[in-house]
Amino acid sequence: MGNFADCCRGFWCGTKNPNIRVSLPVICFIWEIAMIILFGLFVRYNEESDAHWSKHKHEKNITSDIENDFYYRYPSFQDVHVMIFMGFGFLMTFLKRYSFGGVGFNFLIAAFGIQWALLMQGWFHSLDPVDGMIKIGIESIINADFCVAGCLIAYGALLGKVSPVQLMILTLFGVTLFAVEEFIILEVLHVRDAGGAMVIHTFGGYFGLTISWILYRPKLEGSKNLSGSVYHSDVFAMIGTLFLWMYWPSFNSAISDHGDGQHRAAINTYLALASCVLTTFAISSISAKKGKLDMVHIQNATLAGGVAMGTAAEFMITTYGSLIVGFCCGILSTFGYLVLSPFMEKYLKIQDTCGIHNLHAMPGLLGGVVGALTAALASEDVYGHEGLVNTFNFKGEYATRTPGTQGGYQAAGICVALVFGIGGGIIVGLILRLPFWGDPSDDNCFDDEVYWEVPEDEESLPPILEYNNHMISKLPDTSESHFTVEHSQ
Amino acid sequence: MGNFADCCRGFWCGTKNPNIRVSLPVICFIWEIAMIILFGLFVRYNEESDAHWSKHKHEKNITSDIENDFYYRYPSFQDVHVMIFMGFGFLMTFLKRYSFGGVGFNFLIAAFGIQWALLMQGWFHSLDPVDGMIKIGIESIINADFCVAGCLIAYGALLGKVSPVQLMILTLFGVTLFAVEEFIILEVLHVRDAGGAMVIHTFGGYFGLTISWILYRPKLEGSKNLSGSVYHSDVFAMIGTLFLWMYWPSFNSAISDHGDGQHRAAINTYLALASCVLTTFAISSISAKKGKLDMVHIQNATLAGGVAMGTAAEFMITTYGSLIVGFCCGILSTFGYLVLSPFMEKYLKIQDTCGIHNLHAMPGLLGGVVGALTAALASEDVYGHEGLVNTFNFKGEYATRTPGTQGGYQAAGICVALVFGIGGGIIVGLILRLPFWGDPSDDNCFDDEVYWEVPEDEESLPPILEYNNHMISKLPDTSESHFTVEHSQ
Amino acid sequence: MGNFADCCRGFWCGTKNPNIRVSLPVICFIWEIAMIILFGLFVRYNEESDAHWSKHKHEKNITSDIENDFYYRYPSFQDVHVMIFMGFGFLMTFLKRYSFGGVGFNFLIAAFGIQWALLMQGWFHSLDPVDGMIKIGIESIINADFCVAGCLIAYGALLGKVSPVQLMILTLFGVTLFAVEEFIILEVLHVRDAGGAMVIHTFGGYFGLTISWILYRPKLEGSKNLSGSVYHSDVFAMIGTLFLWMYWPSFNSAISDHGDGQHRAAINTYLALASCVLTTFAISSISAKKGKLDMVHIQNATLAGGVAMGTAAEFMITTYGSLIVGFCCGILSTFGYLVLSPFMEKYLKIQDTCGIHNLHAMPGLLGGVVGALTAALASEDVYGHEGLVNTFNFKGEYATRTPGTQGGYQAAGICVALVFGIGGGIIVGLILRLPFWGDPSDDNCFDDEVYWEVPEDEESLPPILEYNNHMISKLPDTSESHFTVEHSQ
Repeated sequence: MGNFADCCRGFWCGTKNPNIRVSLPVICFIWEIAMIILFGLFVRYNEESDAHWSKHKHEKNITSDIENDFYYRYPSFQDVHVMIFMGFGFLMTFLKRYSFGGVGFNFLIAAFGIQWALLMQGWFHSLDPVDGMIKIGIESIINADFCVAGCLIAYGALLGKVSPVQLMILTLFGVTLFAVEEFIILEVLHVRDAGGAMVIHTFGGYFGLTISWILYRPKLEGSKNLSGSVYHSDVFAMIGTLFLWMYWPSFNSAISDHGDGQHRAAINTYLALASCVLTTFAISSISAKKGKLDMVHIQNATLAGGVAMGTAAEFMITTYGSLIVGFCCGILSTFGYLVLSPFMEKYLKIQDTCGIHNLHAMPGLLGGVVGALTAALASEDVYGHEGLVNTFNFKGEYATRTPGTQGGYQAAGICVALVFGIGGGIIVGLILRLPFWGDPSDDNCFDDEVYWEVPEDEESLPPILEYNNHMISKLPDTSESHFTVEHSQ
Repeated sequence: MGNFADCCRGFWCGTKNPNIRVSLPVICFIWEIAMIILFGLFVRYNEESDAHWSKHKHEKNITSDIENDFYYRYPSFQDVHVMIFMGFGFLMTFLKRYSFGGVGFNFLIAAFGIQWALLMQGWFHSLDPVDGMIKIGIESIINADFCVAGCLIAYGALLGKVSPVQLMILTLFGVTLFAVEEFIILEVLHVRDAGGAMVIHTFGGYFGLTISWILYRPKLEGSKNLSGSVYHSDVFAMIGTLFLWMYWPSFNSAISDHGDGQHRAAINTYLALASCVLTTFAISSISAKKGKLDMVHIQNATLAGGVAMGTAAEFMITTYGSLIVGFCCGILSTFGYLVLSPFMEKYLKIQDTCGIHNLHAMPGLLGGVVGALTAALASEDVYGHEGLVNTFNFKGEYATRTPGTQGGYQAAGICVALVFGIGGGIIVGLILRLPFWGDPSDDNCFDDEVYWEVPEDEESLPPILEYNNHMISKLPDTSESHFTVEHSQ
Repeated sequence: MGNFADCCRGFWCGTKNPNIRVSLPVICFIWEIAMIILFGLFVRYNEESDAHWSKHKHEKNITSDIENDFYYRYPSFQDVHVMIFMGFGFLMTFLKRYSFGGVGFNFLIAAFGIQWALLMQGWFHSLDPVDGMIKIGIESIINADFCVAGCLIAYGALLGKVSPVQLMILTLFGVTLFAVEEFIILEVLHVRDAGGAMVIHTFGGYFGLTISWILYRPKLEGSKNLSGSVYHSDVFAMIGTLFLWMYWPSFNSAISDHGDGQHRAAINTYLALASCVLTTFAISSISAKKGKLDMVHIQNATLAGGVAMGTAAEFMITTYGSLIVGFCCGILSTFGYLVLSPFMEKYLKIQDTCGIHNLHAMPGLLGGVVGALTAALASEDVYGHEGLVNTFNFKGEYATRTPGTQGGYQAAGICVALVFGIGGGIIVGLILRLPFWGDPSDDNCFDDEVYWEVPEDEESLPPILEYNNHMISKLPDTSESHFTVEHSQ
């Protein structure tokens, strides 16, 4: 019995073994093979990407190839693609010794997630009733990128504390939950959420925070020396920030309605983001000794305005309405970094490496509320009859829905996103607590050495060193340890 | 009296106090709130971004959403947006310890400037006579990005020597001056300047140089140890260079005429930039001992070809004409860095951190001249009748203008840009000399420590250090100071 | 006689002199002037970029400016442009002290190559029979970017071992060979290769490898201390990787047919790349002690899926077919880095700095084979009659070609690419062996000091050092050499 108890304790509390030489390849191979089989069974080109397009054109009386949805959405798709892989990836390079993990694991899970998202979203949204097949086109791959954003947000809370195997599990479940949640919000409740303030950011934010809460690491101070940035890692992170910031208008407009929908969504997001930058700088400066700005705020809170426009960007929120949303978000998000994050870590046991609560969860909620209000206040005066019908898609069975009702449904959508985020986070968090996923021990967190072959900087003595060899020989006996120290930087 | 004189001297010549804890937040808040109020009063969506688009479509007999200007210009807009925030921002990260300030303050002032530009340019260019409102669409936000480029160019001359508060003031006035200057050149003189060789680069360049002359710092050598680059900061700056270089065809074609105008502007700019790279490398190599290339030249002078095509890109300048412009610019700009910049600093007291004289001011002037010549030499033989009318917009009250006259007006446009640049620079420079804007003292320039929480690299001892703790203990007593030194890198 | 022999030996085997102060400027000037003259004689705008576009529109009954090819292809062009300059450039920054050379020389030769490519490809592909002029438009500049990619791939094998003068020679000949090879494959054999698996990657790969074989450096270990990466140079390289990866769908679809062709090519490439990432991570992990991932694999092998879709992307390869191609390529390419590269260096005397054999040559060959098979298996069932004719361009004199025959021609295309790559490589390699091109000696390879003014890091003592001056004074006598050492990092 004692042995068994020991064994159990060893199983659950034993020394962490972050060796992923078997588990990572196995999970990658199994899942990729599963993808191939499922794509073979279920996924086909839609009428715009199939070689029958020219036939389809004749049938539908489409006069020109430029009417192919590809030309409406491809530029936005590429911008979104850059946000997912470059934006999220480099935003997570800010840690001094976790840049490989930040950008590398982001790459891995996004690449897996988009495949699984094409299937999951396909089953829920673009199943062809005639042949039971998922038909994919440009909008599908934008949506897959969106879907994976939810998981990348969750990764932000866990950065440096989980193994790539755990991240693959998280992505599998995260995408699945996302697709169900999105189906309920967009199809069942008929809610509008083109930039995903609720569907992506609220869900992804609370999903990640809940998982982080369940995976709480009481002794994380052991890794404290690696939990900050260095000068150049902060500059790398700014690359991520800027690509997210610059392309967010594309994010919020990528799947909006053709014409004025995309046009307005881009402009509104552009304005909210601009406004958000000013209040972020203001709060960052006012909160620090001597008014010194903090890179963490600039890297993150400046983006909150884009998140909060996720729902309302395509509505007639007005230009100054967009500025007000950005104004509030910059303040809210920076205060989050200053006050809430330390509070949550200390009292709620939620360790949020990238501060996704301040960048995604809170602004996402706010965005949902702003969207609900803007929808509820919509009128034919402002939109015109046809504009109102198009913007809120009051067609078919929803032809009789009023803006007021729509506002209520929008608000219900927020709740659905919250429930899925927290509920899903609990389930996935418990799964990730199983002890065989290869996560690092508390004092090996934030360290690329655990999962990566990090270049041995001792070998990297720059040429100038050699010129000085004769001088080096004059160094005292300690010189050897000394070099080790220096060049390990 | 003595006391008063002392007080005055203290006021004007006292120790600099770069604490911006009050001034920066105040200026950000006041200006953002002003933006919100002014947008509320004046700014509305135009007919292509308003929900009434579908109605507008019917009225104007537009058959397809793809005819919305959004689809003509959005890809170019995003490229320009990347140039403004990523391109200009990272080009200014080359200093070893001012990368935060380079990319961060660029971010701040561009975000403010685009809002103010939408208003100023709106009042001058896109005021709806019916309701007195500014109507914005995709072209407005491209123009706002263009407008702010003028201020970012000016920032290039001042990089590392001014406070963010000064930059906000500079942007406020710079955008205002820009809008007036642009109105005179484009509307009153009816000059063509799609890529802004005059309007943006000549103006912005001389504006910044004049301010720098007025803010001359006699003891700047005190900061000399920080006025250069390090290896990785030069690589960061290349990111900025390349994004500017790659997307410059979009910059010059973003607001050109639909169809052949945009098409030709992109091709001409592409060619001029390619040609410029070769002569830059040539002059950089020929001017150095052992032919070693200088990163400063490669980072900057390679872009001069794009600047110099700012006016003529949309004209029928011919493909070899574009190559010749690029050829000359690479030589001119690199010589500028080799000869003119040191001369200007020593004899004219103009300290030009980024060398904007060589990258923007001179090539901008040249671009204006090239544009005037190309316009003057235009003929119906080359353009066709309709082509000539479209390219130079010889319509309405300008229907009788000849290419020769147009050339004269183009030349007049250069003078207007110069006058506004220098005149505006004097005014703004004098305002910025007021002693309460929080600028750093002469020996604290080029140092992020002044305005930013710079990560304490002492805390960043990499893990390998710990493995060697036992060896470190063998170090001599000086080890402590020693580490401080090392890890401060 | 002895003197003459000595002289000859000195000529061929003498000490290398990497001074390029004369040769580089001379070659840049001569070639740029030649370009200007040749462009003046031969290159004109095509009907879509000429000011006669409005006339052309009326003649051809084109209803809208949006039908200008510019709007179909410009977004893809910009993505390809980023891949060439940013993607290839930054992928080559991974070496610890050759980042300037990686990104800088890439910039130089690409800028020259695109001009020469416009001429060479113009003579072979877009000569106007009426006036004997080359007519250029958006498709020409995409093709020029493609053409130069072949030379940049070859540069990957030679990175750090050649002078910029040699690279200019390589580019001159490489582009020439490319244009002939492309003409034979695309025009004579009427083969489809939109993303250039054969034309670009197979050719470029074997071209570079053959040159590297001829330029074999027996004593390259002398530079071994510089042939690896450091932490931040690996992060820089990831910027290149990600931009290549994200924009590869644009690469393969940029010159595909309007409509479904571009649409399908983008989707297929997107899928193959996603799949490739998973198998790359799997093999990288399984092959290392403790399962640690290797940045070299992640930076390169993840891209192989895009290469291998270069031919088949526009075909109806099916979505799962694309996933399978990516799956195989990730495995193949990573194994290449693990097994083949060391083998080739040791036994075949091929020193391949960036591993282009694994990233371009092999996946290119595979892509050619996949394309041939997919073409041979095409049928009217799958494509529809019109779709089949459009996709394979079975028009005019090729109207009677069957998919089976087309498959045979596709296979023949692979052989042509191989022959030109290896044959051309031998010729160019022998030319580059001439002793006056300024290449570095075996123990000066991979070192930016040879061709660049590298910032003197001794001058870059960060500010904190000064605060500690009093402590520094306590350091032992060795402190001076000591600092030199430290700050040279």
